[in-house]
Amino acid sequence: MTKPIRLSERSLNSHEAPISYLMEQGLANPGVISLAAGFVDQETLPTKELESAVQEIAHNPKRGRDALQYGTTHGLPPLREIIVNRLNDMDGIADASHQATVHRCVLGTGSQQLLYILGEILLNPGDIVLAGVPTYFVYMGALQSFGAEIIPVQTDEHGLVPADLDRKLEQLSREGKLSRVKFLYDVTYFCNPTGLTLSLDRRPRIVEIIKRWSTENRILIVEDAAYREIRYLGEDIPSLLRFDESGEFVIYAGTFSKPFAPGVRTGYMIVPADLVKPFVQQKGHHDFGSANLTQQILLSVLQSGDYDRHLSSLRKTYSEKLQMMLDVLSEQLGTFGPQVTWTRPDGGLYVWLRLPKSIDTSGTGTFFKDCIAAGVLYVPGNFCFPTSMEEMPTSFIRLSFGFQPLERCREGLLRFTRVAREYLARESNRREQAIA
Amino acid sequence: MTKPIRLSERSLNSHEAPISYLMEQGLANPGVISLAAGFVDQETLPTKELESAVQEIAHNPKRGRDALQYGTTHGLPPLREIIVNRLNDMDGIADASHQATVHRCVLGTGSQQLLYILGEILLNPGDIVLAGVPTYFVYMGALQSFGAEIIPVQTDEHGLVPADLDRKLEQLSREGKLSRVKFLYDVTYFCNPTGLTLSLDRRPRIVEIIKRWSTENRILIVEDAAYREIRYLGEDIPSLLRFDESGEFVIYAGTFSKPFAPGVRTGYMIVPADLVKPFVQQKGHHDFGSANLTQQILLSVLQSGDYDRHLSSLRKTYSEKLQMMLDVLSEQLGTFGPQVTWTRPDGGLYVWLRLPKSIDTSGTGTFFKDCIAAGVLYVPGNFCFPTSMEEMPTSFIRLSFGFQPLERCREGLLRFTRVAREYLARESNRREQAIA
Repeated sequence: MTKPIRLSERSLNSHEAPISYLMEQGLANPGVISLAAGFVDQETLPTKELESAVQEIAHNPKRGRDALQYGTTHGLPPLREIIVNRLNDMDGIADASHQATVHRCVLGTGSQQLLYILGEILLNPGDIVLAGVPTYFVYMGALQSFGAEIIPVQTDEHGLVPADLDRKLEQLSREGKLSRVKFLYDVTYFCNPTGLTLSLDRRPRIVEIIKRWSTENRILIVEDAAYREIRYLGEDIPSLLRFDESGEFVIYAGTFSKPFAPGVRTGYMIVPADLVKPFVQQKGHHDFGSANLTQQILLSVLQSGDYDRHLSSLRKTYSEKLQMMLDVLSEQLGTFGPQVTWTRPDGGLYVWLRLPKSIDTSGTGTFFKDCIAAGVLYVPGNFCFPTSMEEMPTSFIRLSFGFQPLERCREGLLRFTRVAREYLARESNRREQAIA
Repeated sequence: MTKPIRLSERSLNSHEAPISYLMEQGLANPGVISLAAGFVDQETLPTKELESAVQEIAHNPKRGRDALQYGTTHGLPPLREIIVNRLNDMDGIADASHQATVHRCVLGTGSQQLLYILGEILLNPGDIVLAGVPTYFVYMGALQSFGAEIIPVQTDEHGLVPADLDRKLEQLSREGKLSRVKFLYDVTYFCNPTGLTLSLDRRPRIVEIIKRWSTENRILIVEDAAYREIRYLGEDIPSLLRFDESGEFVIYAGTFSKPFAPGVRTGYMIVPADLVKPFVQQKGHHDFGSANLTQQILLSVLQSGDYDRHLSSLRKTYSEKLQMMLDVLSEQLGTFGPQVTWTRPDGGLYVWLRLPKSIDTSGTGTFFKDCIAAGVLYVPGNFCFPTSMEEMPTSFIRLSFGFQPLERCREGLLRFTRVAREYLARESNRREQAIA
């Protein structure tokens, strides 16, 4: 009998990702329409732009060979420069400190890898991460694998609530835990899962609060801006990074997966200058650089303007799908009044829906099973809260209009709302009986 | 005054990679010819093959979009299937257990990322890794960042010495440390840095020894076969994996960086079946999948035959450069007799050279500085031994013929041998005087 392999503590502490459970459900039920997957719209994927970029790269022998050679651990310098220029443009920053920021920009295998490495170089077991909840559940899994404690911070329709952040930090200070607080994590544009954006007026206040509580060690803010560029309504607003004039507190994470193509698997992160060296060193252990070829492809599409043209058409497609989702929800669930509510995002890939407390939407409940039986899959809202929540919210649902084509998305939504209507009607009857 | 950022224990324990020191030396001395870099030959990089592959992918709209979408964490299934088929062909294995092995194959951002994740899911601080030394210094850095203790195992011209492996395990057993031994790491084909290959007759013996000592927990063998496909002389020999009939002990790591192109940054690993789940789970935290596009490109070049055609031309180019390197070393240093010796590899990218013990080749010594002044950079041999060595060997040198074109490689070698001849002549004089 062969002995088992003895895994590391880190591996043993790591839980199976909720996404695996969802994928298994999808695979086990092939007819099901997934409104769960955060994949991007298949039809929008830029095959022509890819081909032109690779032609351009390959027809210049030096460039072609450079693209096929090892890159650097830090990431392709001209791509980092374009990223920083675009970011400064969006934030309305003149490029005085430009070179410094290019140095502060690192590239990785999606923003996920950069978020992972950040956790790795900052977190000891028992350290604390504050997070506006509900939040991106994949990163919560990574944070928990480092043994971090996630302290939830309230959010409302304007995003993270500054007063609650202040309150949580005050409480941690009273408990003598301030020195263990490493960073605040927040998805600040069209949040995964709520679709909501942190309002402009709250941004400087949040930076100020974090600075103010950085008395024992520097607390960082990790601004996950993965969805920033896929806005369909209104004007872009400046990042948290914009309000951190010293450049010492805010880390900004972005990606080309959502606005261009996940297959190029390239993300970027702006880190404080004193974090660049440990960050790049750790990435050196991982892979001494993500795929150089895909960085070169991105450089090419950004330079040619194909990136921005693609982004325009992408915005149009998603905007129609979002509108359709909001219309179907109104038509089908609007009659139930405030029993059921949902967000109306200006961008991103998600709508966040709340059912009455008595309806349990978690993966083990009957509502989830009835949806699978009706042929539709969603992300149970409880996945998006840390397991340490005192009272776990179990009546939320994340619906994504990203992956499915418009008509299939509509069909999935109709399947979903049929199940929801049944439950809501039963709930209404129950309430009426209770009153009577 | 802003507080400093408090880094994690892991980050604080992580040392700057020796490669950074070398790169700084290269950058600070622009005229220098690097015989240090493990980069592949720039002129060989397959730009035409890249273009055809991307054309093929992009002209099939479904395939094109699939390539630009997220892939899976585990890696592109048809690419994993081709990898396993090729591996079984090379090892002369009929594909009875084929599907099992495709399941056991995971893809990553170079084999480096897979080696890193393996360390992460296996190693607790204080755990032990045995390694045939000298060995691949980048991985040693990663192992040390996990707090692992590296126990060196002797190698000779036939690779890892089985008797020494047995002796080391016996000693660890006597010391009560056997339960802390997690794996043996060895570069089994054209080793980085020695260029030598583990001989066929030693392979089953090594598997047998590891199995025999797996009494307290299962000890694994990590076979790094990064250079296997770039053989210039003789016939391929079966892997260690081939001799592990249960599939429970040997992990096999391979890469497309050396035989095709580093820019696609794709490696593969065959792990025991019971390691697949924790492995993929950990990779899910890192990046939920390496770049799907580059995996699709590799699938295309493997299917079209472009990969094998490229490999043939690559072998020819490298083989000429290796022969030139051996010729120059013979011409320039042959007269010094056994004072200076070097390996004569049948493949890979490296020649390993030994100078008399009195000549210190380390990065802080005068020999290294004189080489830089003469315009040539090499990898000091001491980088390739664990810092825990009782007696650190400081008279070895790794020379790579990979990156530089033939004539520049020759020029670099002539610069190197001029410095070496001076030191060796001085050494001969010293010896003669000592005798007289």
